[in-house]
Amino acid sequence: MAGTDSTQAPKLGGPSVILIEPQLGENIGAAARAMLNCGLTDLRLVSPRDGWPNPKANAMASGALDEAVQVSLFETTDAAIADLNYVLATTARHRFMSKPIYTARQAATELRQRQRAGQRSGLLFGAERSGMTNDDVARANAIVTVPLNPAFSSLNLGQSVLLIGYEWYLSDDNTPAHSFEDKGSPPATKAQLTNFFARLEGALDETGFLRLEDKRPTMVRNLRNLFQRAELTDQELKTLHGVISSLMRDRATPES
Amino acid sequence: MAGTDSTQAPKLGGPSVILIEPQLGENIGAAARAMLNCGLTDLRLVSPRDGWPNPKANAMASGALDEAVQVSLFETTDAAIADLNYVLATTARHRFMSKPIYTARQAATELRQRQRAGQRSGLLFGAERSGMTNDDVARANAIVTVPLNPAFSSLNLGQSVLLIGYEWYLSDDNTPAHSFEDKGSPPATKAQLTNFFARLEGALDETGFLRLEDKRPTMVRNLRNLFQRAELTDQELKTLHGVISSLMRDRATPES
Repeated sequence: MAGTDSTQAPKLGGPSVILIEPQLGENIGAAARAMLNCGLTDLRLVSPRDGWPNPKANAMASGALDEAVQVSLFETTDAAIADLNYVLATTARHRFMSKPIYTARQAATELRQRQRAGQRSGLLFGAERSGMTNDDVARANAIVTVPLNPAFSSLNLGQSVLLIGYEWYLSDDNTPAHSFEDKGSPPATKAQLTNFFARLEGALDETGFLRLEDKRPTMVRNLRNLFQRAELTDQELKTLHGVISSLMRDRATPES
Repeated sequence: MAGTDSTQAPKLGGPSVILIEPQLGENIGAAARAMLNCGLTDLRLVSPRDGWPNPKANAMASGALDEAVQVSLFETTDAAIADLNYVLATTARHRFMSKPIYTARQAATELRQRQRAGQRSGLLFGAERSGMTNDDVARANAIVTVPLNPAFSSLNLGQSVLLIGYEWYLSDDNTPAHSFEDKGSPPATKAQLTNFFARLEGALDETGFLRLEDKRPTMVRNLRNLFQRAELTDQELKTLHGVISSLMRDRATPES
């Protein structure tokens, strides 16, 4: 999906993303891109296999690593989380540890609440193949697991960051669930609709479509409902008036 | 994140995913993988640039294209959606068309409702660079836009499919928001806790930690709250009893 509006200030800040011993630069770049998609900007790398900086990461980050996402480097997980008050470990595997497990959505609520209380939080992500060690899981307050098809739940690093970041973003987003882009033409008023219905029904009376008296009320209601449901704009109603005029033009005079 | 449990039957079915003129096989593969993560299995390709089948798609699909995700090929968008009752166009760009716009979450609700009513639905995704044409958008009932950082909202194809698919999956998922993995040891009973508190407070009385009578009630309550909050298991309480025994072992007899 294209669609970046760089005139709008990004929503920045939020939990740190800590990648533990990431292997491929491409995955670090994809994680950075996903972070910025979701307004996260503090990326911490614990002993990345191929060192840092890594040109392959930049190539995959679509610009996210140029300015917005800040990267810092640590030798140990303990050092990377030292300043954080609350840490979640992202893992899909059962760990057989006594630990709370949150869905990504619930984790976002917990993280948002702590941010509002002035606490600093972080999300731990394990290495690509091996995942997170149990010792790293034990460094976290709780586990986050993204609910997905249990028979095929494996995600790559960038996708894990994206799904958890997305829930973080939504936990403070007020986009209306349903909106309507109206091209500058507002929905028609009910008076305009009533006027259109009179026109349409008059034309259909004239052409004989509504001639069965006992069926007429139902047919009229059905037609009205169809156009109500379409939520016609002012401009669209004008177009439909034109359609009726065009269809009625040059009709032969009815025989009777 | 690793973690695929292939003993669990996948939740399959759901809306068709229609990729219009996809360019890179890798992106088709990533889309297929994301689909199966979310229990979607009907992939329709409209004029893929490099033809089909495409080995690069299989390489990126992590096995999703081997069996579970079914691919069909179409020459036009109209042909690909011909059997569907309800179609959503995924796009982040403003189209200046009079059309309802849903968030991914709301779109999932709409799609789920229609599936329950026995209708077939589809999700249209445009080509990687050019996105969806306005004519293709006009083929859809409504638009889906994923709310993301407005200054950096661009997603690749696999990620778009993943986020919308994730919401689809969650719209019929009953994973508890907060659960607790207890390693087979249940949370301790309150009687076990009361017993532990008596033991701990007795030891601390003995060592003088609780000697200030006016502070004692608050200190005791704080200690009790800390252990209540930890939601100790039966097994952990046994460990803590051992910790107290160990710390109290071989103490010098108090002087007074």
